[in-house]
Amino acid sequence: MRAIIIAVGDELLSGAAIDTNSAYLSEQLAARGIAAVAHWTVGDDEQAVADAVARAAGSAEIVVVTGGLGPTADDLTRQGLARASGAELVLDEKSLAQIENFFRIRGRQMQPINRIQAMIPAGAEALQNTSGTAPGIASRLGNARVFVLPGVPHEMKTMFEAQVAPQLPQLTGVIVSRAIHTFGLGESDVAAKIADLMVRDANPLIGVTVEAGLVTVRMASRAESSQAARRQADAVAGEIKKRLGQVVIGEDDATLAWAVGELLRRRGQRLATSESCTGGLVGQLITSVPGSSDYYVGGVVAYADEVKHDSLGVDRQLIAARGAVSEEVAAAMARGCRVKFRSDWAIGVTGIAGPRGGTDEKPVGLVYVAIAGPAGVQVYRQIFPGTREVVRMRTALAAINYLRLALLG
Amino acid sequence: MRAIIIAVGDELLSGAAIDTNSAYLSEQLAARGIAAVAHWTVGDDEQAVADAVARAAGSAEIVVVTGGLGPTADDLTRQGLARASGAELVLDEKSLAQIENFFRIRGRQMQPINRIQAMIPAGAEALQNTSGTAPGIASRLGNARVFVLPGVPHEMKTMFEAQVAPQLPQLTGVIVSRAIHTFGLGESDVAAKIADLMVRDANPLIGVTVEAGLVTVRMASRAESSQAARRQADAVAGEIKKRLGQVVIGEDDATLAWAVGELLRRRGQRLATSESCTGGLVGQLITSVPGSSDYYVGGVVAYADEVKHDSLGVDRQLIAARGAVSEEVAAAMARGCRVKFRSDWAIGVTGIAGPRGGTDEKPVGLVYVAIAGPAGVQVYRQIFPGTREVVRMRTALAAINYLRLALLG
Repeated sequence: MRAIIIAVGDELLSGAAIDTNSAYLSEQLAARGIAAVAHWTVGDDEQAVADAVARAAGSAEIVVVTGGLGPTADDLTRQGLARASGAELVLDEKSLAQIENFFRIRGRQMQPINRIQAMIPAGAEALQNTSGTAPGIASRLGNARVFVLPGVPHEMKTMFEAQVAPQLPQLTGVIVSRAIHTFGLGESDVAAKIADLMVRDANPLIGVTVEAGLVTVRMASRAESSQAARRQADAVAGEIKKRLGQVVIGEDDATLAWAVGELLRRRGQRLATSESCTGGLVGQLITSVPGSSDYYVGGVVAYADEVKHDSLGVDRQLIAARGAVSEEVAAAMARGCRVKFRSDWAIGVTGIAGPRGGTDEKPVGLVYVAIAGPAGVQVYRQIFPGTREVVRMRTALAAINYLRLALLG
Repeated sequence: MRAIIIAVGDELLSGAAIDTNSAYLSEQLAARGIAAVAHWTVGDDEQAVADAVARAAGSAEIVVVTGGLGPTADDLTRQGLARASGAELVLDEKSLAQIENFFRIRGRQMQPINRIQAMIPAGAEALQNTSGTAPGIASRLGNARVFVLPGVPHEMKTMFEAQVAPQLPQLTGVIVSRAIHTFGLGESDVAAKIADLMVRDANPLIGVTVEAGLVTVRMASRAESSQAARRQADAVAGEIKKRLGQVVIGEDDATLAWAVGELLRRRGQRLATSESCTGGLVGQLITSVPGSSDYYVGGVVAYADEVKHDSLGVDRQLIAARGAVSEEVAAAMARGCRVKFRSDWAIGVTGIAGPRGGTDEKPVGLVYVAIAGPAGVQVYRQIFPGTREVVRMRTALAAINYLRLALLG
């Protein structure tokens, strides 16, 4: 069972808006055993919509269209569907009554242009919109079921759940998706360790992706029941996690900051941060986790050297002798931070984010990360490539990961 | 001049990831007078990629493909392009040397599977990847120029800017793009002030977009010479800036943090930050600007109440009486921060980012921002809607903007 999802809107093609509907619909369809084989985005153009719908109906059993159901002249999805179906647009009295009611209960007058929203191709069925004015449309084109939904995400989701999902073919198979996030190995290194599991048409089907600095192993497990699919996924996930060991951070919504937070919470320990080149990014990532006040005390952004001395007690002569970007200063920052905040753990970060400020000896991208803990201080040296933004993000993620490994070790 | 953008990736079709590349590319192309007429997403499937590329090349002059250039068995974009071109994949020695070097300077061993990343269709040209292992590909299919870029957004953007964009102007004639960024008015309010300039087919063509918290007026000026196009853009930009006044931050690469930095630099003044709910985000944004060490001293992430007292000198009884999230504590944080860091200006931020921790009196999203300066302290109260991430970002941007207005005032 295959699906094609079509997003309609000039704002998508201009880049002014990002299409999130297609990802939502794909996930919903996959959970019901229906694989999206393509996403298409077309502009607010009657012929483009008609062509896309006709073509999709020729190569998939399910077609879902979002957007272009508004009342204005540039909303042409219903006209496009009518053209693809070779049908006239006819007034759906029940939809008109609902639209009139939508305005009435809000104490507003329905504008004449909203009448077009009650038009659907002859032979199609209107889908009620409980959170907006635009009814959706359910239709059939050749062998395909075609569903047209509003573009506003919350209206689209409400309509999909209430009125499309119950109409989807009763399929025996379901797909359960799982993500195992890792940090510390490259995409190819991760793939090399599980290459024998990444076979085409394997079940679960396994792929490796890179997103937001993490290398993620994605699994799609297909079975007759969601229980069986989950059992099957569990078995393979267990094997993958065994092979990858400590680079595994967690599953699904897990992030590095979340993983560190869980480890600190479990031990009842507290963390503080001191950052130079990352300027507060480590603290920001740590506190992106709800409830992080349970273990995160606070931090110092020690951007100027005087702050490294005044707030963290780093020796001025050490800075002069070794430079602010040095193993010794990173260690002194973390050590001073741990004392100042009376925390169990402290992170110290210093480096050259660029684009200027590098030398032959200390190039742009050079960073030192120090982890101070109950057993002492450990310093790590890295040279990260990339823009200022990328260097800073990689540094912050690496810092949190070094702490994670220290907490595991 | 028409473009079709193709995103490749099973993770996109499964809904596990959202395609942001196509919107970025559309915007970049539009700024150069090239209209994206469709976005297509296909899976990691050689035939699907080949079909999509061939079809796109048949109906657009520019085809940009992203994703599927990784080293693993499920990365099949280069094979798909080769199939569409009827060409063999051949080893590009220069690319191989670059990939080997990428691993060498990181002290890592190149895996044999990475060798595939140096393969390109015979007759095509490799595009160097300065921030990852996958080179891109520039090719020609029929009358279309085809560019294949990595799927990782920052690698894709770097490659587009450095190696694709310079190849585009010779295809299109002269279009000069300008962006005027604003903060403080909604999209429709900005549009209302310049509605008479936003005419279809106007030259410069003007649109309003919302990105990363800023409302941006975009202009595309078309003329026979870049000088004429720029002159034309300057005239309209001047009029737009006059109408919008102090909400204008700057043009093109300008950010709020950059604008504040310029104002501080001009005055020879220094800034420090103290943050609670934003956890370091204000400092991170301020230091995202290269050279920010000229005016940014540092900051305190005062997450725990004890840090507000110990590091910033906020009175414990004040925190007990008014609560950590209060006008008085925000003011005391900013005041204490200014003294501690001996800076001219200090920002103090406290609030409830959620999703928990809100009460009837102090709901989630309530934030206080204090700006301490030579003339005293001013506190602002806001209630921001949205997720924890959104509340934090809006708070940080608002804080930087309040400082900007204080510096302008």
